[in-house]
Amino acid sequence: MSKVRNWWWFIDRVGNYEAHMHAIKKSIHHEKTDFQEVGIVESINYGKILVLDGDMQSSQYDEFIYHESLVHPALIAHDNPENILILGGGEGATLREILRHKTVRKVVMIDIDGRLVEICKEYLPEWSQGAFEDKRAEIIHTDAIKWLEKNNQKFDIIIGDLTDPLPYTPSNGIYSLPFFESLKASLAPDGIFYTQSSRISFIDMHLHCVMYEAVNKVFPIVNTAMVAIPGFDVVWSFTAASEKKDMNSLTKQEIDSRIAQRIAGELKFYDGETHTGIFSLPKFVRQKRKNFLLGITDFSTQQHEPEYII
Amino acid sequence: MSKVRNWWWFIDRVGNYEAHMHAIKKSIHHEKTDFQEVGIVESINYGKILVLDGDMQSSQYDEFIYHESLVHPALIAHDNPENILILGGGEGATLREILRHKTVRKVVMIDIDGRLVEICKEYLPEWSQGAFEDKRAEIIHTDAIKWLEKNNQKFDIIIGDLTDPLPYTPSNGIYSLPFFESLKASLAPDGIFYTQSSRISFIDMHLHCVMYEAVNKVFPIVNTAMVAIPGFDVVWSFTAASEKKDMNSLTKQEIDSRIAQRIAGELKFYDGETHTGIFSLPKFVRQKRKNFLLGITDFSTQQHEPEYII
Amino acid sequence: MSKVRNWWWFIDRVGNYEAHMHAIKKSIHHEKTDFQEVGIVESINYGKILVLDGDMQSSQYDEFIYHESLVHPALIAHDNPENILILGGGEGATLREILRHKTVRKVVMIDIDGRLVEICKEYLPEWSQGAFEDKRAEIIHTDAIKWLEKNNQKFDIIIGDLTDPLPYTPSNGIYSLPFFESLKASLAPDGIFYTQSSRISFIDMHLHCVMYEAVNKVFPIVNTAMVAIPGFDVVWSFTAASEKKDMNSLTKQEIDSRIAQRIAGELKFYDGETHTGIFSLPKFVRQKRKNFLLGITDFSTQQHEPEYII
Amino acid sequence: MSKVRNWWWFIDRVGNYEAHMHAIKKSIHHEKTDFQEVGIVESINYGKILVLDGDMQSSQYDEFIYHESLVHPALIAHDNPENILILGGGEGATLREILRHKTVRKVVMIDIDGRLVEICKEYLPEWSQGAFEDKRAEIIHTDAIKWLEKNNQKFDIIIGDLTDPLPYTPSNGIYSLPFFESLKASLAPDGIFYTQSSRISFIDMHLHCVMYEAVNKVFPIVNTAMVAIPGFDVVWSFTAASEKKDMNSLTKQEIDSRIAQRIAGELKFYDGETHTGIFSLPKFVRQKRKNFLLGITDFSTQQHEPEYII
Repeated sequence: MSKVRNWWWFIDRVGNYEAHMHAIKKSIHHEKTDFQEVGIVESINYGKILVLDGDMQSSQYDEFIYHESLVHPALIAHDNPENILILGGGEGATLREILRHKTVRKVVMIDIDGRLVEICKEYLPEWSQGAFEDKRAEIIHTDAIKWLEKNNQKFDIIIGDLTDPLPYTPSNGIYSLPFFESLKASLAPDGIFYTQSSRISFIDMHLHCVMYEAVNKVFPIVNTAMVAIPGFDVVWSFTAASEKKDMNSLTKQEIDSRIAQRIAGELKFYDGETHTGIFSLPKFVRQKRKNFLLGITDFSTQQHEPEYII
Repeated sequence: MSKVRNWWWFIDRVGNYEAHMHAIKKSIHHEKTDFQEVGIVESINYGKILVLDGDMQSSQYDEFIYHESLVHPALIAHDNPENILILGGGEGATLREILRHKTVRKVVMIDIDGRLVEICKEYLPEWSQGAFEDKRAEIIHTDAIKWLEKNNQKFDIIIGDLTDPLPYTPSNGIYSLPFFESLKASLAPDGIFYTQSSRISFIDMHLHCVMYEAVNKVFPIVNTAMVAIPGFDVVWSFTAASEKKDMNSLTKQEIDSRIAQRIAGELKFYDGETHTGIFSLPKFVRQKRKNFLLGITDFSTQQHEPEYII
Repeated sequence: MSKVRNWWWFIDRVGNYEAHMHAIKKSIHHEKTDFQEVGIVESINYGKILVLDGDMQSSQYDEFIYHESLVHPALIAHDNPENILILGGGEGATLREILRHKTVRKVVMIDIDGRLVEICKEYLPEWSQGAFEDKRAEIIHTDAIKWLEKNNQKFDIIIGDLTDPLPYTPSNGIYSLPFFESLKASLAPDGIFYTQSSRISFIDMHLHCVMYEAVNKVFPIVNTAMVAIPGFDVVWSFTAASEKKDMNSLTKQEIDSRIAQRIAGELKFYDGETHTGIFSLPKFVRQKRKNFLLGITDFSTQQHEPEYII
Repeated sequence: MSKVRNWWWFIDRVGNYEAHMHAIKKSIHHEKTDFQEVGIVESINYGKILVLDGDMQSSQYDEFIYHESLVHPALIAHDNPENILILGGGEGATLREILRHKTVRKVVMIDIDGRLVEICKEYLPEWSQGAFEDKRAEIIHTDAIKWLEKNNQKFDIIIGDLTDPLPYTPSNGIYSLPFFESLKASLAPDGIFYTQSSRISFIDMHLHCVMYEAVNKVFPIVNTAMVAIPGFDVVWSFTAASEKKDMNSLTKQEIDSRIAQRIAGELKFYDGETHTGIFSLPKFVRQKRKNFLLGITDFSTQQHEPEYII
């Protein structure tokens, strides 16, 4: 008889006063790269989990929700997405989803942490599924801000798959106005910038509002989607910004029809009805964000305390 | 100088392999009634929390999301809701939201646990806000199943605000076919039964599917909403069932207009756009539920293990 | 059937990298006095627990180990202890144990936090067991350092029952040289100062060594006892200092005989054999402390990091 | 700037209502052998930790306390220990300490789990320090009970270094009367059986009492030592049983002198004073154990509940 208790837990902090506990089966890899602490563990409920600097990054069983949300709304909204740029995207799953689009001719991925990409290739092949070997993909390991400053290619879609710009991460400082200016210069006239835009919660949506305000200063049309990510334990947001494309201009049927024509294989999360759901925000979210833009911050400030080591 | 650490935690189990930790400021009340263990604590992030039999039931700061979702979609969809029945609803917040509707003439609330209602009145006045004193409200403490069997009133709306029908709760066994038959007999011809319908997650939506299947056997029109509840750490579902009313038949503008005419004060969560969002389900949810109805269960079975004491 | 999980935990930090979790049944009292945060909870394994500023102070079921260790060795070692001074001792259990000695005529207890004493009287009567009402007891609520400076009574025994002198506690700065000088001036020539002297562990015994070094500068004879306190999860030390009394000078039989003559009722923890055990320190403890006095600190320094909020 | 939180914890259950949390730096190895689940992790406070079936077995920084306590009292008490038998002892640290005794000519170690020994050799070389390569050592992987039944060698010392005889471990059922009879038959007339004898706590010392009662039925002289093991969070016991040797018959000076003559290198934990301390039991321990032998069990029974998966 063997009755083994769960003795090993990943305690994922969400600020100082909440945490999500995951029972862990085993450890797969642990390493400090030049840029961040990388941990890969196997949990009972979510399969493999990638942990960067103590924060859950994505999990084997629910990464399809995150990565389909981060790719397809923008590519489907575009009439003919051929050239794509990914900022970040180390695991390779963003690249994987982009390459499923038959219109795509070239994808450039800029991730500062080359070692992280190697680790993901070796230990998380379920994420990239061979995407790094696709001839349309070009992977560059450098600082995305500096690369954009010098870039003179034009992209149809730029996907932002960077960690939150917190002080202790390699993404610190990335969402500045000069960054958005050089980013905009790299977009084709009908291009779309589409990025993860942090957590949305009644407790804290400060970072989301900061990012939303920044893109609003640079682009005339901005739309936000909200998606519950079970492993993150919170609702995550994705924000699209462009000169011309409103993300709500296609009907459910048009979305389903573009998916059928353009995407290889079957999607698990995204379709016309899903699109409608995730781009319809609850009233309090729209209200709080409006207040933020007016200088009224009515959400709790405690979350902006520095985070403590647990 | 006072630097006090968080030493007190509510560890909310979600199955055997995950948990949500909440830092607690203080305890407010603790009691075992004849039916369940009732705990009320004050957390840092969510204010007061009601815990029944170890499960978080609702929290001060985000109960508006749960209770607006549980009341307004059904009452707004109905052309003239006058007589309402609540099954469960001990905290009084469901009653509170119903009474905001100017059309409502009478609300009967059946909660088996009279002592729980007393505790909520005394310690959670922010939930009921005087609703129990409203002359339109009648509170009955008895077994809902037996009450429905003998009832011959007809209700426009029946709201199901019971705990999940798990073996260790007073709701055990409530979602049986005979229960739904007597429930249907208590509905007016254009009436709507609208109930919380458990957690939806790619890890586990078994209980939701069981409940969905049961109402589908009794009612021709069934619609489900999905709402992320931050304090629950999961996405919760609400299911509407009726002979005639499709919850998606009103436009956003019609919903906003009915809210303006019928509801006193301003809502925080629910409006036309929110409605559209929550009644649009992600593809994988529709797919898994369809498979369940076909006898194909493709979600993890580990969650149906008995739950262990932590 | 009622199968309720443990949902409520006291997580007692021991530095930044370890913690002891206690399942809690209910909360009894919570209050911030002028000096500290006071929490009283009822745990499953230890009965009631007193928590001061997030640290476990004593528990109902094992406080006999702590309080017998803190009182009887010194009073038994003394030939005729009549006048006793307690520094701290809010719970009243130190007073209770002292008053069991038939030789004792007067006990003065100085605890800065009068409200804490009231709370303990009301909610922890199992600790004091009426001791505060004994005519021999005089309770004074003032700063112990200042009181000692002005005092001109002489005591046979002074018991130190203060919290550890950490920055965020009311005991901060109490173990200074001037403090020990005025303390010594309050002792009779054959008097004994006997105090709790912090945790002893191979990981951290820094605070113990600091306290041990301080008393060694003022008193010629110093002895330390080590006692495992289950609820603390660690081994706690008690240090006796005097001009004349070596704590190891009595045989087991002499100790047992003095206990039989002088103490009312039966002790649960302390007797001659227990004395021998607790005043015999393991080799590595003696070695590390000797090194500390020589300026060699060979234990981990990580424990002297500031402590973070969990 | 890199400020990484502790995200990985080993939660070591002690019954259903307490646990000890250790912050983990990384995972070193994880494997299920034919007999048990083996985990090796690196903690911040204790260095490497060996976990068997979810229970902490020993840690790098404090294993010296456990293993010196488990070996030297018996070998020093014996006049000339030459032939030694170890039951269990997979890590190799018990073997290491035995081999430091210059009198020892042969050590037989019987551990059922050969794979565990291989894992310890590879990942925990700090424990065995080459002991497995010593020519005096013979390692046999078989069932200790069956081996003892057929054995006809005589040993001066038999060391019991087995896990607690709990239902889910390979040690289940080992402390039976037939086992002790065949064990006694393998001891030389002046031999000593010396074994770890489980946790001693006011909350639970049931298993200790069961083991103590069993050896008392077979041997006339039985002595128990109690040692606080920081990593275990509890006080552990060691019990010596023999026909002739009382463990308290040597003076501190005689013990120190035998150590100086017979043991290579310097001990960290054990010497004459340590011996006196650990073989002097607190009054309540002696009292509760006496009551147990009289059929009076006055400690909490809750601890004998089956243990639940956390």
